[in-house]
Amino acid sequence: MKVFGFGAQDADKELTPLVFDRKDPRAGEVAFKVTYCGVCHSDLHQVRNDWKNTKYPCIPGHEVVGEVTEVGEGVTRFKKGDTIGVGCMVNSCMECEKCHDNVENYCQGPIGFTGTYNGPGKKEDQNTYGGYSSHMVVREEFGIKVPKGYDPKYVGPVLCAGITVYSPMKHWNVGKNTTLGVAGVGGLGHMAIKLGKALGAKVVALTRSEGKKDKLLNMGADEVIISENKDDMKAAAQSIDVLINTIPVPHDINPYVNLMKPDGSIVIVGNLINFENVVPAPLVVNRISIAGSLIGGIKETQEVLDICAEHDISPDIKMVKMQQINDVLDTLEKGNDSDFRHVIDMQSLHDEIDSLQDKATQVKNPDRGEVVNRKAS
Amino acid sequence: MKVFGFGAQDADKELTPLVFDRKDPRAGEVAFKVTYCGVCHSDLHQVRNDWKNTKYPCIPGHEVVGEVTEVGEGVTRFKKGDTIGVGCMVNSCMECEKCHDNVENYCQGPIGFTGTYNGPGKKEDQNTYGGYSSHMVVREEFGIKVPKGYDPKYVGPVLCAGITVYSPMKHWNVGKNTTLGVAGVGGLGHMAIKLGKALGAKVVALTRSEGKKDKLLNMGADEVIISENKDDMKAAAQSIDVLINTIPVPHDINPYVNLMKPDGSIVIVGNLINFENVVPAPLVVNRISIAGSLIGGIKETQEVLDICAEHDISPDIKMVKMQQINDVLDTLEKGNDSDFRHVIDMQSLHDEIDSLQDKATQVKNPDRGEVVNRKAS
Repeated sequence: MKVFGFGAQDADKELTPLVFDRKDPRAGEVAFKVTYCGVCHSDLHQVRNDWKNTKYPCIPGHEVVGEVTEVGEGVTRFKKGDTIGVGCMVNSCMECEKCHDNVENYCQGPIGFTGTYNGPGKKEDQNTYGGYSSHMVVREEFGIKVPKGYDPKYVGPVLCAGITVYSPMKHWNVGKNTTLGVAGVGGLGHMAIKLGKALGAKVVALTRSEGKKDKLLNMGADEVIISENKDDMKAAAQSIDVLINTIPVPHDINPYVNLMKPDGSIVIVGNLINFENVVPAPLVVNRISIAGSLIGGIKETQEVLDICAEHDISPDIKMVKMQQINDVLDTLEKGNDSDFRHVIDMQSLHDEIDSLQDKATQVKNPDRGEVVNRKAS
Repeated sequence: MKVFGFGAQDADKELTPLVFDRKDPRAGEVAFKVTYCGVCHSDLHQVRNDWKNTKYPCIPGHEVVGEVTEVGEGVTRFKKGDTIGVGCMVNSCMECEKCHDNVENYCQGPIGFTGTYNGPGKKEDQNTYGGYSSHMVVREEFGIKVPKGYDPKYVGPVLCAGITVYSPMKHWNVGKNTTLGVAGVGGLGHMAIKLGKALGAKVVALTRSEGKKDKLLNMGADEVIISENKDDMKAAAQSIDVLINTIPVPHDINPYVNLMKPDGSIVIVGNLINFENVVPAPLVVNRISIAGSLIGGIKETQEVLDICAEHDISPDIKMVKMQQINDVLDTLEKGNDSDFRHVIDMQSLHDEIDSLQDKATQVKNPDRGEVVNRKAS
C-alpha cells in the first residue's frame, strides 16, 4: 500500500513529503485512511532527537483517527467505513503479565510495546511511521472504537493527552472522595481537569500564571492555586490526595510534596529529565509517593474515549493543515502551545496527493512487527 | 512517681543522671519498671539536635520493655507483673481517620502523635521523656503485649527497627510472590531481611561491602548484590518488586530505580536529608514509585512482635549498661553500629538508684498529654 506522509530525515531537517509502502492488512489487521492527527509535544522532541533515540526518517503522529478502508482475515472489531482511533502503540507481545493485565504500555516482552512511530524502542533496526501520513494499518486489538456522535476531530488528543492523565487517575483511585491536584495546565493538564471532574473528584489546578485563573475555573476546576504564591501554597498544605504533575520541564518538586495528604501520590507524566534535590523527609513523615506513569493500556484508552463521549468532554483544539506542520512545531518549541492542542486536518494531505506523486522522497518502508498472540475480541 | 533517667540538657552536653516526676497512672494507663531499652540512631540525632527540633532536657529511648507495676482504672489489656513493650509513640488523638485506620503514626489530630520522647512534635511547650529512665507510664492502647517465651531483651529493637521495615512490607504487599530488596543492612536492614523471609518473600540484600556477603546469606538473604559493582547492578535490572531503602544518609537513588520491576516501589525509611538529581524517566516508563514510610501503627507493631516470636526472629544485639551510654552514642556517631543494635540492660540503672538520689539533677516534669478517646480493648 503506497502511503504519503510528512517526516524529518534528520534532527536539523524540516518535515517534508515522503512516500513509502505499508504492508497490506494481514490476518487480524485493519487499514484506514487517516482523517485527523493531533500534534503532541513528543512529536517535536522525537523529530529534534531531544531524547537521543530517534530513528530517521521520523514520521510522527500518535493521536490518529481515520476511516476503515479494509480489514484482514478474522477481524471482528472493525468493518469498512467504521471510524477508528490509534494512540501511542500499535503492537506488543500480548503474552507477558503486563499485556495480560491490559497495560500493554508496560509490556515486558523482549522488545517492549511498539510505538506508533519510532517504535519499537528496543529495536534499532526496525521503525514505525505514525499518523502524519495518508493511510495506516494496525492490528485490531490496538484500534480504538470511536463512540457514535463523538466528533472525530477531537479523538486524537484523547488517545495521548487524555489517556496519559486518565490512566494514573484510575490506577490511584481518583473518584468522588478524592481531591485531585493538576500541576501544569497545558495539553495534558486541561484534559486532567475535565476528566477529574467527570470522575467526581474535587479538582485543584496549579498554575504559575494568574491570568489563567478564570479560564481554569470555567473549565471546571474547583480551585486554582498560583504555584508561585507562597501563601497560597502554604494554605493548601496537606490538602491533595493525588497530584497529576504535567509540568514538562525540570522544576522544584518539594513545594508540591507539601501539598499532599498522608498516603498521597504525586504522579509525574511530564518531566522526564530530572528533579534536583528531592527532600525525602515529608515523604517519610506522611507516607507520600512520587511515581511516574506512561500513557495507558488499550482497554483504558477505550474507556477514556467512551467517558469523553458520555460526558461531552472535548480537548481544546486548533485545526491546522499538514503543510503548516513546521510552523506548528516551531510554535510548540517556543512554548506557545499551552492553551490547546493542534490537530492536523489530514484532508489537506489527501487533497495534495496527486501533486506529491513526483515531489515526495521515497524512504525505507516501515515495519510494524508480526501479528502474534491474537486476542479473541 | 519519682523517676531517674539519663538525658542531655543541651546539644553539646553528654547524657547525665536526671530526676523528675511522672504523673501516676490515670484511668486507662499502665505504669512499668523499665528493664531493657534499645539504642536507636535517632536517639543520637535527637540528643545532638541534628534535626533542629530537640526540646531539652532530652531523655531518649523508644525501644522500651518493662514489667507492669500498677494499672489505672479500667485497664484491661495489662495487669501487674505483665511484660509490656513501648515503641515510638505514647499517645495520639485516637479520633482522626488515620487513628481509626490503626496508623496512629500518621495521626492527623491537631498535635499529631506523641513521640515517646521529644513529643509531641507539633507542641513546643510540651515534652515527653523516653525509656532511658527507671519507670514509665503509658496509656494501655500504646502498650505492646510481649508474647510468652520471647526474651524481653530482644523486644525493644523490634518496636522501632522492626516495625519501621515491617510496616512498609505490609503496606506494599510483600509476600510469597514478591522479590524484596533491602538496601543498607544495619539495624533496620538486618531486620528487613529476617522479616522478609518470614513473610515468604525472596530477599535480595544490597550492600557496599563485599565482606558482609556471607553474613547476609547466613542471615537468610537469598541473594546479595554489591551495590558498587556496576555489572551486578546491571544484571539485576528490573528484578525487584519492593525495595526497602534503609541507607541513613544522602546517596544516589537512580541506580536503585533501575532495579525495580514495572509497578515496583522504593520505600525510603533511612535518609531524611535529600536526594540529588532524581531522574524521573525510569519512574514514568515503568510506573515505579519512590515513597517514604515512618515507623508503623500500634496494631502492626503488635503484629511484628508476634511474628518475631512465632518465627524465632531476634535482632542482633549487644548488651550495654546505662552508664556506658555516652560511649555508645559516640560509637554510633562514628558509624560503627552496622552489625547489631545496642540494648541497655536497665538493671544497671536500678542498681545505682540509691546513689543517684543526691547526684541526679532535677529537671522539669514531662507531660504525656491527656488520655482522650479511649478504645475498648
